[in-house]
Amino acid sequence: MELDEALQDAYQYGCQFTDQGVVADYIPELAKEDPHRVGAAAIGPDDRLFTMGDAEYKFSAQSIAKIMIYLGVLENYDLSYVRKFIGVTPSSKPFNSILELELSHHKVPVNPFINAGAIVATSLLMEKYRSNTFEMIRKRAREIIGNDHLDYSHSLYLSESNSAFANRALTYMLLNDGIIQSDVNVEDLLSAYFRACSLMVNSIDLARLGAVLAHEGKGPDGKQLIRKEHAATIRTVMATCGTYDYAGDFALLVGIPAKSGVGGGFVASTKNGYGFGVYCPGLDSHGNSYVGVRILQKLSQNLNLSIY
Amino acid sequence: MELDEALQDAYQYGCQFTDQGVVADYIPELAKEDPHRVGAAAIGPDDRLFTMGDAEYKFSAQSIAKIMIYLGVLENYDLSYVRKFIGVTPSSKPFNSILELELSHHKVPVNPFINAGAIVATSLLMEKYRSNTFEMIRKRAREIIGNDHLDYSHSLYLSESNSAFANRALTYMLLNDGIIQSDVNVEDLLSAYFRACSLMVNSIDLARLGAVLAHEGKGPDGKQLIRKEHAATIRTVMATCGTYDYAGDFALLVGIPAKSGVGGGFVASTKNGYGFGVYCPGLDSHGNSYVGVRILQKLSQNLNLSIY
Amino acid sequence: MELDEALQDAYQYGCQFTDQGVVADYIPELAKEDPHRVGAAAIGPDDRLFTMGDAEYKFSAQSIAKIMIYLGVLENYDLSYVRKFIGVTPSSKPFNSILELELSHHKVPVNPFINAGAIVATSLLMEKYRSNTFEMIRKRAREIIGNDHLDYSHSLYLSESNSAFANRALTYMLLNDGIIQSDVNVEDLLSAYFRACSLMVNSIDLARLGAVLAHEGKGPDGKQLIRKEHAATIRTVMATCGTYDYAGDFALLVGIPAKSGVGGGFVASTKNGYGFGVYCPGLDSHGNSYVGVRILQKLSQNLNLSIY
Amino acid sequence: MELDEALQDAYQYGCQFTDQGVVADYIPELAKEDPHRVGAAAIGPDDRLFTMGDAEYKFSAQSIAKIMIYLGVLENYDLSYVRKFIGVTPSSKPFNSILELELSHHKVPVNPFINAGAIVATSLLMEKYRSNTFEMIRKRAREIIGNDHLDYSHSLYLSESNSAFANRALTYMLLNDGIIQSDVNVEDLLSAYFRACSLMVNSIDLARLGAVLAHEGKGPDGKQLIRKEHAATIRTVMATCGTYDYAGDFALLVGIPAKSGVGGGFVASTKNGYGFGVYCPGLDSHGNSYVGVRILQKLSQNLNLSIY
Repeated sequence: MELDEALQDAYQYGCQFTDQGVVADYIPELAKEDPHRVGAAAIGPDDRLFTMGDAEYKFSAQSIAKIMIYLGVLENYDLSYVRKFIGVTPSSKPFNSILELELSHHKVPVNPFINAGAIVATSLLMEKYRSNTFEMIRKRAREIIGNDHLDYSHSLYLSESNSAFANRALTYMLLNDGIIQSDVNVEDLLSAYFRACSLMVNSIDLARLGAVLAHEGKGPDGKQLIRKEHAATIRTVMATCGTYDYAGDFALLVGIPAKSGVGGGFVASTKNGYGFGVYCPGLDSHGNSYVGVRILQKLSQNLNLSIY
Repeated sequence: MELDEALQDAYQYGCQFTDQGVVADYIPELAKEDPHRVGAAAIGPDDRLFTMGDAEYKFSAQSIAKIMIYLGVLENYDLSYVRKFIGVTPSSKPFNSILELELSHHKVPVNPFINAGAIVATSLLMEKYRSNTFEMIRKRAREIIGNDHLDYSHSLYLSESNSAFANRALTYMLLNDGIIQSDVNVEDLLSAYFRACSLMVNSIDLARLGAVLAHEGKGPDGKQLIRKEHAATIRTVMATCGTYDYAGDFALLVGIPAKSGVGGGFVASTKNGYGFGVYCPGLDSHGNSYVGVRILQKLSQNLNLSIY
Repeated sequence: MELDEALQDAYQYGCQFTDQGVVADYIPELAKEDPHRVGAAAIGPDDRLFTMGDAEYKFSAQSIAKIMIYLGVLENYDLSYVRKFIGVTPSSKPFNSILELELSHHKVPVNPFINAGAIVATSLLMEKYRSNTFEMIRKRAREIIGNDHLDYSHSLYLSESNSAFANRALTYMLLNDGIIQSDVNVEDLLSAYFRACSLMVNSIDLARLGAVLAHEGKGPDGKQLIRKEHAATIRTVMATCGTYDYAGDFALLVGIPAKSGVGGGFVASTKNGYGFGVYCPGLDSHGNSYVGVRILQKLSQNLNLSIY
Repeated sequence: MELDEALQDAYQYGCQFTDQGVVADYIPELAKEDPHRVGAAAIGPDDRLFTMGDAEYKFSAQSIAKIMIYLGVLENYDLSYVRKFIGVTPSSKPFNSILELELSHHKVPVNPFINAGAIVATSLLMEKYRSNTFEMIRKRAREIIGNDHLDYSHSLYLSESNSAFANRALTYMLLNDGIIQSDVNVEDLLSAYFRACSLMVNSIDLARLGAVLAHEGKGPDGKQLIRKEHAATIRTVMATCGTYDYAGDFALLVGIPAKSGVGGGFVASTKNGYGFGVYCPGLDSHGNSYVGVRILQKLSQNLNLSIY
């Protein structure tokens, strides 16, 4: 099947499920989203872009920003050093699990895509970039996605920051266990993290991010935007940890490295050149876009993309 | 690189690490193995077999048998039914973790490749095959591997059965929580499970198993030995759960669906036609053959096989 | 208030609550009991006995037998040695909690009155008394209670043994962790434990046990049946651990050292000479006789017996 | 034995153990204390005071302040209401355990004397007293102890506040789980809590507090300073929860209701009129003054005070 046809079919298939997800309400701003809004964008090996639905509708990246944060860490530290503070092990517990952190080996977050892991990753960036940490993350996101206007939503950031009891608990646990250095200012750290989560993107932006990862780190003009090995590392961790405790099910159902955000977005990336961005705000019980999973499932089937 | 060259190089690379693993000693019979014995076998897309070292040395399949047990379940029940009793979620806890089971959703084992999951899978087979459960597993293993002489070691089975406190604890927890039906006889169940774990295989047998999975379930003569979708399901679960709480690291380092056993064996299988069997009894802290991981890592690099 | 008057008042008060408890059904034989049957017996400092209701109705001691088992351990080992295998720490988890055992310090059961602790205590007796372990426990129970006919119910024992998945899980966990010696035969161990739990007693028997503990270990004729310091140890552990995770509430509400059993029985003992035995099979959510708690509460108030 | 003689003997006995405890170092200011400084004060049923050693040396109350906080809650709310937010169940986990909170029923702190419970208690006071919460606690402490100069140490408070990662983690977990109301300001809450913990007392102050609790809430002049039932509730919870996960051992060894603080202080109180205050900063592994436990043990033996 051709990519445009495959996308159209997948979009139509996914739209049947808009009643099944639940819009996140623990961040008040997110609760306002329309569960029937769906967007999808696809870029193929030839870098041509196709879109369906509200592909230009902007939403917050949320956990998808963890890709940019972890990339920042990989670009500033040896992976072997990073592994002392953040594992690459999939978790069978929810993304904000206190129990998973408390019971993990040496209290090290099991992977960079659960909240504890992303917070530690942000703290490692803080040690290099101090008060410019978020600006660095935004700069890299703009470069990779090729969108100079990419920015965060201040109202969403405030909404998020004010309701972030679980993330603050995780942060103080990490400080208590010495995984985050004690000289890191918690409010600065969380401010950088929440602003990154509040980066506003649309499905096209995410498809572009997916395409760069899919093209071994190269942009549409062939420029190396991400080092090849970092793109491979990120695709791998997306595959094993990108959809939280649903990652094993997602591997069976979809079989493409992908990362979801509770804002309703999804980025997916195949080794052989496909990048996808999908949006629909209703979530499944694991925090992944319900419709997003199904659009990606159909795309995978239509184009025979499962890596397994 | 050609397959024979790639295998030779990987074998030589792996042999450097025979001092680093630790031979399992919780099953007395296993403790007798020679940590310097290494075997490796590879089958390529053209079904040609290459071997290195003690590729014909026989050892017990241990957790590799979980592939046969789970396959038996897939062949007898709908996947959606199976999922009520066994998840497909990777675990961040050791393969025999009581805590993981106690804290998992509805007390359902998170995946079929941790002990609790394989025990539940065996109990599902018991409901169909009763006292012939092990015989069915062995029959399928013989058919798929193409080795009519495949059998279990009685002495190893006894050794295993007598030292299986953790597995018995897990079994009674599963009975208590209603995941295993209360009419299942525990001793019969564990007898079938331990005999399956005691199936004696060599590296060539495992390479053949890997090749069948890699060829969409077909044997060397093109006969469909495993249904195509079951081969895909098993490859997927091997990728996400096959090396226990090391699965995320293994994905980064090797990137090939694989299943290890504490006997020191490893089976690996790629979608595009490669099957590998490796043996060396020294284990890493997660229960995977230390040398085996490194041989597979080098094979993956030499042949560019990472799926991610 | 005089003891007879206090008992009558407490009995009448307690009988109002017979509809509120739930008869245990996880042991099939227990489920047959009549929730409206209530018995109560009291012995004062002068050793006079008073009874109300079905004080001669026989029921199984269940966890009350843990007193006899722990006493046996105290009489055969130094307390400091015993403490290596069984703590004296109250638990905030249910009596059969696998999590409590898995998370406890060195996997040692926190106290002798949760199931794991009583099973370890039985295993310590097995090391001395081998196949006569239950007979020893019964002999001591007969001596202390002064009832040569005290015996266990075989049908109840069988019912209990056949439904004891959680206890078997705990036993194998304890074997796996080396808290129970690996040469102990599990079936013999559990047989001794379940027969002790199936000892049939009535409220008068329990009042006598309570009175011996209350009189510094002396029987009605002044004979030292239990060493004084053992009586003190048992009263103390009853106070802190005798009603499982309800022990803190029980201290506030009643304030008397007591031990409950899921058979519906209760034994209570004060330092200043009162022994009580109470029965009513309906249980609260912690496994204590609902009516029993209230009869003891009223007795404590009527006689001003709270130790706190 | 007379009280003065009993105290002298116990003090001398305790002083042998000053090398065995470890001075708390997680609050930098505490680490400066001299492990060989010992103070002890005793008040008997006749209200006469005896002292030994540095009984006037001032130290921070730390967890002993939890008595005042919980008393404040009891004086402002019905116990049945309080129980919805704070249990009275002893814990088998350390005083700052995140796991205990995460695994407790409905995420309610198991008792008011672990950190999570005292923080919730402070939040309940905040709902009544807002920014005057600490002032109220201090006022009550002054009234009960009869010392108008009682105040907190600002340097210690700052030291404590700056190193309180675990307490902040617990507070945010409690907010996340709705046990603390979301409109409570965390910094104000912790400021009140840490100032209460930093109240500077000496052994005599603590003996006076113990004596008031021991005299059914009455001061030396017979004035009712604490309601009788509140004194009883506090003595009970001290007995079951006052020495954290050591409470069961403490009951066996000492057998007197007592509350320890990591500052090295101990207050103890018997129903029959004895109040004790003890100080020595070296702690056992549970956070109780090592010497303090032994002085109280000897006092209990000398005066036959065990309640069990």
